[in-house]
Amino acid sequence: MVKIRVSDAREVIAQLFGKLGMNAHEAQIMAKVLVETDQRGVMTHGIVAAPRYLRMIRAGEMKANVEYEVVRDNGTIAVWDGKRSAGQVIGYLGMEETIAKARKNGVGIVCIKGANHFGALAYYAQMAQKAGMVGIVLSSAVATVAPYGGCEKMIGNNPIAVAAPAGKEIPPSLDMAMATVANGKITNMMLQGKTEIPEGWGLDRDGVPTTKMSDFYTVPIMAGYKGWAMDVMVDVLAGVLFGGATGIRAADKCGGPGVFMMALDVDAFNEREKYNEDMDARISELKNSKPAKGSKGITMPGENSTRKLMESEETGYLEILPEIVASVNACAAEMGVEPIETF
Amino acid sequence: MVKIRVSDAREVIAQLFGKLGMNAHEAQIMAKVLVETDQRGVMTHGIVAAPRYLRMIRAGEMKANVEYEVVRDNGTIAVWDGKRSAGQVIGYLGMEETIAKARKNGVGIVCIKGANHFGALAYYAQMAQKAGMVGIVLSSAVATVAPYGGCEKMIGNNPIAVAAPAGKEIPPSLDMAMATVANGKITNMMLQGKTEIPEGWGLDRDGVPTTKMSDFYTVPIMAGYKGWAMDVMVDVLAGVLFGGATGIRAADKCGGPGVFMMALDVDAFNEREKYNEDMDARISELKNSKPAKGSKGITMPGENSTRKLMESEETGYLEILPEIVASVNACAAEMGVEPIETF
Repeated sequence: MVKIRVSDAREVIAQLFGKLGMNAHEAQIMAKVLVETDQRGVMTHGIVAAPRYLRMIRAGEMKANVEYEVVRDNGTIAVWDGKRSAGQVIGYLGMEETIAKARKNGVGIVCIKGANHFGALAYYAQMAQKAGMVGIVLSSAVATVAPYGGCEKMIGNNPIAVAAPAGKEIPPSLDMAMATVANGKITNMMLQGKTEIPEGWGLDRDGVPTTKMSDFYTVPIMAGYKGWAMDVMVDVLAGVLFGGATGIRAADKCGGPGVFMMALDVDAFNEREKYNEDMDARISELKNSKPAKGSKGITMPGENSTRKLMESEETGYLEILPEIVASVNACAAEMGVEPIETF
Repeated sequence: MVKIRVSDAREVIAQLFGKLGMNAHEAQIMAKVLVETDQRGVMTHGIVAAPRYLRMIRAGEMKANVEYEVVRDNGTIAVWDGKRSAGQVIGYLGMEETIAKARKNGVGIVCIKGANHFGALAYYAQMAQKAGMVGIVLSSAVATVAPYGGCEKMIGNNPIAVAAPAGKEIPPSLDMAMATVANGKITNMMLQGKTEIPEGWGLDRDGVPTTKMSDFYTVPIMAGYKGWAMDVMVDVLAGVLFGGATGIRAADKCGGPGVFMMALDVDAFNEREKYNEDMDARISELKNSKPAKGSKGITMPGENSTRKLMESEETGYLEILPEIVASVNACAAEMGVEPIETF
């Protein structure tokens, strides 16, 4: 791991997208979303994605500047066609609109179809959280997972994110997908030359559990039929409901993932002060309950990644894999942008 | 298993509650919700609960007729204080109001606190489904589960239900709780004198996995930290958000569970015909994908229980454990009501 400056990373990312014609406001959104994801330690969805997005803009698969059509809008619920816009930027704008709608009505919903990969959903849910609302974001994704009882890749590892505000405690947040483990973890093990994978991480081409890397085909859904049921329902809410793409059609080069964003304004449900007090008390009660034998204690959802983010904001630095910085810096060199400095 | 007539079961249940002063309309709702749950094969949450509810009404822990206070209502979102009303009846009325709100605004939300046990959430979510909407229902529950990494019963096995309409296919639905397995399954094994439980089903008092019935204390959360994160977020949405009870406070004799009900009207998101076609196509595509080796094929969420319900509606009969009928009939004998006939 190497250290990089947060401000430096944001600047370089914004400049790279700027070079391909993205306007300054949108390039800064792109940089902020990607870098904050790394600040939370989610390196699979941070600046590592920048080179791919830059290639997509060059190839005409992604628009340099956001463009969308409001397909429907009744004041509370909107459906946008993202017209191959960058997911991070339209996702950010979509959640801004979701929050504005919730400010008026207590609840706001914006669904986006036809854009590109949105990266980590936590960022958008946490925008609502910072605005004093519960944020819920669901996404369809390209088919990488087999149905429960099946063996073909038919459905996405559809992620969900939920974030809720708190008073003085670290606000809880969740950002998870439906498979037992991220595909990326197995890809990394493969790159490291491992021949075995842990039990429960892999299915072969017949849909039978395997621990052999050579037989690995896909990752099983978590919690059996429960995970399968959730995966289907995310497909419905973040896809079929508003005409968003599902399955193989949700690929970036095809329809792109569908996203369902919702914000619930605490003020429409409760007295703000009571909510904050109750939330803090509940967090503290759960965290201070007795740990299991051998456990290091109870961690609330999102607590570790939020602590990482807070520390990074305080020091101005973040830790990241050197390969990721190298790949971004290779783009920088090619495009005449000063590289990200490492420490 | 014995067979009983659906109409007979409804009649007897309605009469039993009527004897304790429940008005005819509400007694019929209670009967319909409980019997339909058995028609779906979910015998843990059907008429088996009637004797307990009758005791609670007698003990003054549950009101014979629904009474609630509208704490808030902005036209789209309402919060009700259920004042110890019967969960099944206030849940039914709450979803009726949720659907009415969604009909006007595209989305409707009703949160209920202070009532009693709501039984299986599927019924309420499916009310929205039958109205052409996506129904989502979350509930807090009395603390029976330990936090991930903990060993004290601090949080409920908080259930969630989602149901979405379809065109000609069986509409998908989900109704699940957060633990690996229902506590009731282990209670049944205990009653049968079993000394061993399957791996992954039990934690001992130190929060350590066990397969010994004598060491069993509680059921682990599904999918490790993912299930834990979901459990916490259901606690927030169905509890803390609107002042509903969580943890040990969610017991029937205490604050009662909190329920968050939402309906999303498909017409606010899409053309109805396109939605129906897309949903049918997606269901058919998933179901017709290749089964895993040794699998009997792919079953959609809720498909089996809906088939059971359809069959029961067609024949007019349902299958149920004889002990359940016996316990209801014991109440009937005591209260001067004709018993449910068995076949």
